[in-house]
Amino acid sequence: MSGQRQVAVVGGAKCEPGSEAAVLAEEVGRRLADAGVTLVCGGLTGVMEAACRGASEAGGVAIGIVPGNSVAEANPFCTHVVATGIGHARNLAVVSSGDAVIAIGGEWGTLSEIGFARAIGRPVIALQSWALSGRERMEGAPGIVLAESAREAVERALEAL
Amino acid sequence: MSGQRQVAVVGGAKCEPGSEAAVLAEEVGRRLADAGVTLVCGGLTGVMEAACRGASEAGGVAIGIVPGNSVAEANPFCTHVVATGIGHARNLAVVSSGDAVIAIGGEWGTLSEIGFARAIGRPVIALQSWALSGRERMEGAPGIVLAESAREAVERALEAL
Amino acid sequence: MSGQRQVAVVGGAKCEPGSEAAVLAEEVGRRLADAGVTLVCGGLTGVMEAACRGASEAGGVAIGIVPGNSVAEANPFCTHVVATGIGHARNLAVVSSGDAVIAIGGEWGTLSEIGFARAIGRPVIALQSWALSGRERMEGAPGIVLAESAREAVERALEAL
Amino acid sequence: MSGQRQVAVVGGAKCEPGSEAAVLAEEVGRRLADAGVTLVCGGLTGVMEAACRGASEAGGVAIGIVPGNSVAEANPFCTHVVATGIGHARNLAVVSSGDAVIAIGGEWGTLSEIGFARAIGRPVIALQSWALSGRERMEGAPGIVLAESAREAVERALEAL
Repeated sequence: MSGQRQVAVVGGAKCEPGSEAAVLAEEVGRRLADAGVTLVCGGLTGVMEAACRGASEAGGVAIGIVPGNSVAEANPFCTHVVATGIGHARNLAVVSSGDAVIAIGGEWGTLSEIGFARAIGRPVIALQSWALSGRERMEGAPGIVLAESAREAVERALEAL
Repeated sequence: MSGQRQVAVVGGAKCEPGSEAAVLAEEVGRRLADAGVTLVCGGLTGVMEAACRGASEAGGVAIGIVPGNSVAEANPFCTHVVATGIGHARNLAVVSSGDAVIAIGGEWGTLSEIGFARAIGRPVIALQSWALSGRERMEGAPGIVLAESAREAVERALEAL
Repeated sequence: MSGQRQVAVVGGAKCEPGSEAAVLAEEVGRRLADAGVTLVCGGLTGVMEAACRGASEAGGVAIGIVPGNSVAEANPFCTHVVATGIGHARNLAVVSSGDAVIAIGGEWGTLSEIGFARAIGRPVIALQSWALSGRERMEGAPGIVLAESAREAVERALEAL
Repeated sequence: MSGQRQVAVVGGAKCEPGSEAAVLAEEVGRRLADAGVTLVCGGLTGVMEAACRGASEAGGVAIGIVPGNSVAEANPFCTHVVATGIGHARNLAVVSSGDAVIAIGGEWGTLSEIGFARAIGRPVIALQSWALSGRERMEGAPGIVLAESAREAVERALEAL
């Protein structure tokens, strides 16, 4: 691959447009695009869609890695889609495809992605994620960095590349 | 399937024989066998091997679901082995195959399994796991029950079946 | 694993009970059980169900490796079930879990399993399978053996263990 | 997704640069790029690398879907990479991600991809593939089209989109 840098953005499918998580995700997507970094994510709704929207509207690349057998299930802001056909197990593909992982919000699938990311050695930047609803939570956990803003999250991810 | 009940035991591969986690896992395996419940796990070392040893030495069934393409990578206490060939993604298969999940110890793969288990609605009983190194951690997280002993963990799992 | 031998039986989900493929599959399952070999398969209907019926009614072990997240989708003749949650990709787990593979009948999923089996070096015994609707088809393909009967298929599989 | 059309190219990893299969694959990749279609493939060597080279050198997009946990294993002509971490099971992701599948050459993994493609309803265009070393082979198999040239293969794939 021609040296393209990729960052994975993970987060729940259920957050509403306009929610805090969605607003953060969209800014993260935009900032990654501005930095010339490709965004990879799970390609569905919520945090994923907001991040893709931010990236693609800023002229960046947003790759959606969806659970089903059809690219048609991706949100409309993905510039490319990989349909895995392996359901929730595609969470591993999402984090494997990023050189760093930014986690936004705290659904259970996001927790599985944080676990996988660390299991394969990817740095994780947590933004309003599992770490936050008790900020002290994972502070001792090596490899998890807590960020306070979308800007800080992207800066930390870029440092980790 | 002829009504066979199955409980998944998840936990790290790195804990040493004789460690607290291994001792707990072996007792959990034995108690599941005594209750006539089939144990499913990731089939490798550490917590997985200790649990399989406990189950099979008590005359129970222990199914190892290993990441590689060969059943030969399973620990010797598995009574049956499924070789998935899908690496860490087999964590999803482990928790999907249990009607309840007992998590022992706290490696990253275990965290991914807790996340997957809850994402697909499986009750999780945590024993010296992510929840415990800060017991308050996941207390608010619906679907996670903290257990203090192997006996309590198995009782809670059986209640959940 | 305690030296347990496992043979994978692969074949379509659509064949009717009483069809030639189903009758062959049931006999294959019974003969594997009689030989003390564990049967692994995809755990659903058609060839899979017939093979499981043959094995379990003969007192053998039949492990179903199903595509969804729930063991409940398995046919009632599986003695144990692994729910993978990875859809069609579980075909890789089925063939990886057998020391040899017996293919019965000719649906597309079966073709994927023959391909996977050979890609990871498993001997394949074809019985009324892709090879048969033009027997010459795979004759030159190394690693595929054509069998004329359930008895011959099981004998060839046992020789290959 | 913004209506982007995607075609999967599948084929063996072992063919040499300059071999007939590699030359065909490179032309297929180039023609897909010229048609404004995104190429998806397994991202490794042989047919995959030749197709990616053809596509990317013609200014197109080539997405490599690799089996391991790292994007670094992709060939240098992939414009984007998804690292699945699920080994051979990623073959399902490759064919799921194409609206049509062009199969070139005849290794076993390719056979698994043809099987998967048809199992999920994707049209398959075979070029010097399994169908060819006995052209009559799959002629009766619904959904498999035999092509004589790279040009014909791409035309058939575009018709199928």
